Amino acid sequence: MPDRVQAVDFQAGKLVLLDQTLLPSEKTFLHLDDVADVWEAIKLLRVRGAPAIGGAAAYGLYLGVRGVPDDAGMPAFMAKLREVRDYLASSRPTAVNLFWALDRLVGVAEAATGDDVAALKARLLDEAHAIKAEDEAMCRAIGEHALTLFDGVDAVLTHCNAGSLATMGIGTALAPVYLAAEQGRTIHVFSDETRPLLQGARITTWELDQAGLPVTLITDGMAATVMRRGKVQAVIVGTDRVAANGDVANKIGTYGVAILAHEHGIPFYVAAPSSTIDFATPDGDAIEIEERDPDEVRRLGGRQTAPADIGVFNPAFDVTPARYVTAIVTEKGVVTAPYPENLRKVVLGG
Amino acid sequence: MPDRVQAVDFQAGKLVLLDQTLLPSEKTFLHLDDVADVWEAIKLLRVRGAPAIGGAAAYGLYLGVRGVPDDAGMPAFMAKLREVRDYLASSRPTAVNLFWALDRLVGVAEAATGDDVAALKARLLDEAHAIKAEDEAMCRAIGEHALTLFDGVDAVLTHCNAGSLATMGIGTALAPVYLAAEQGRTIHVFSDETRPLLQGARITTWELDQAGLPVTLITDGMAATVMRRGKVQAVIVGTDRVAANGDVANKIGTYGVAILAHEHGIPFYVAAPSSTIDFATPDGDAIEIEERDPDEVRRLGGRQTAPADIGVFNPAFDVTPARYVTAIVTEKGVVTAPYPENLRKVVLGG
Repeated sequence: MPDRVQAVDFQAGKLVLLDQTLLPSEKTFLHLDDVADVWEAIKLLRVRGAPAIGGAAAYGLYLGVRGVPDDAGMPAFMAKLREVRDYLASSRPTAVNLFWALDRLVGVAEAATGDDVAALKARLLDEAHAIKAEDEAMCRAIGEHALTLFDGVDAVLTHCNAGSLATMGIGTALAPVYLAAEQGRTIHVFSDETRPLLQGARITTWELDQAGLPVTLITDGMAATVMRRGKVQAVIVGTDRVAANGDVANKIGTYGVAILAHEHGIPFYVAAPSSTIDFATPDGDAIEIEERDPDEVRRLGGRQTAPADIGVFNPAFDVTPARYVTAIVTEKGVVTAPYPENLRKVVLGG
Repeated sequence: MPDRVQAVDFQAGKLVLLDQTLLPSEKTFLHLDDVADVWEAIKLLRVRGAPAIGGAAAYGLYLGVRGVPDDAGMPAFMAKLREVRDYLASSRPTAVNLFWALDRLVGVAEAATGDDVAALKARLLDEAHAIKAEDEAMCRAIGEHALTLFDGVDAVLTHCNAGSLATMGIGTALAPVYLAAEQGRTIHVFSDETRPLLQGARITTWELDQAGLPVTLITDGMAATVMRRGKVQAVIVGTDRVAANGDVANKIGTYGVAILAHEHGIPFYVAAPSSTIDFATPDGDAIEIEERDPDEVRRLGGRQTAPADIGVFNPAFDVTPARYVTAIVTEKGVVTAPYPENLRKVVLGG
């Protein structure tokens, strides 16, 4: 089994985070027991990826209330819990999974009416562990379902990072690659560097290399040539949100990759935890696309790569229309078109 | 008329080159009268773009023989001319236009049997000026033909740099933008940054900005979204070589842009001096694609952006099949499919 780096772990009473802002140059783990350090780690993107952020926040909430004396009384404990919850929620207010994880722990505490403070602390740590275990299981299930699509696939192309470092398990888009390796089968990954923030270059190549898995880095503009030369038999990417009709929001550049795959007759798969499928969003047009700081495009690593005041268009995400999506792989199963019906069937079971 | 920066000029007996390796941070002109400095400028890509290199080499050859005494005798002069020709040719042995320009001057000298040394020196400088004047005229003619295709076009997307800084005139792909500006009409340019070497970010945005023309920089992965949102009505790029069947070799990433344009119903134009149309190359499969240093992809401006030893695929160029090319714009006219017949008709007149 590949020697995967854990993005989020809990060891010897401390939250252990890989500091992803130092990649690819340094492999540094932070051992945190102060909630202020957890807040900062989320704020500064030392931990990133929705599932990994949720897990870090859950452990952070536990760390933030661990010091409450066991004899403080439940009202004081609950007040502190809500205070720490609000504090951690302010670290990255746009991260939906952050709120979900924090509120899940608060809900456990609210429901645990018979507990004393000591018992409730233990229960909150258990819940954080449960979130991590569920995430690990979700990743494996996505990997297993994705592998059913990978007969004859010995190389895939991916964009951005939806690997183990975005989750607490073996990733989503990269899960089938890790699972295949466990089974003694090699799936080569071509990784788009993914400008402007280079998550592919900095993170995807690094995590696969650390696990001893073969990876080839390309610039985003090389994907078409990789496909034309037959170097990959599938594309698989992650997603931030899937609309009810199957439109897929993901890192900027994904939509272009989907068109290129379509034109070359290569299947385009989206690995999507069911939590990312948003039935309240009818289609991609309803997804607002954030525009980010122009200096992300004008500069790279502190170096100016374009005139300092030049106009920039810097959308953070794009939307891939469902017609380009060959299948959406959730932990509950593989979904194919027609998505409006089949997403509900597979994800909601109805 | 926009205040265009001249990449190559000849002033007060010196070759004046913009040092393009310092862009976009510094605007520095080199005033060269030593052929060794010209050799170095070509070698180190201070001057780049086939027409600009040819022009710099022609002036460089003149500078290299200018110091031969007028009474040296023709045999000694011709020996020196050939020696300098070979020396300059060694600066960038893969640049076809370099050889073309040098051999054109040598041919003039060989044909000028009645001249003395002083007269021949003057004739060589005239020939270098003629190369520059022809290049300027070629650019304008391409611009005029391209503008006939631009009814209703108020914004275009381009990839890499086929602008004034690649030529001695107003560029090839950007020529219609400069010409439109002369006519009081604004064509907005969206410029792909063009990884790995960032010619779009460093050079295209800079030259347009210097000329006071509106330009928006995007990363290569954003082109699909620019098209989907209707921000551009055409794509226009340059080319290194066009095969006899209309297949187009150009900077890596061009092929993907062509597919995206096709999918969005946006015309894809190639600005091609007739000198780049190679009737000896039957199709794109016959064009060998150089692979370049992996560190171009793993690093950026001295900074490591990926693990130091990660595998890289780094093709310098790609080939866009003729079926994605809406028209090829030469200085002799606009060529549309079927290219095998029409390229010959327009370019060879037969």
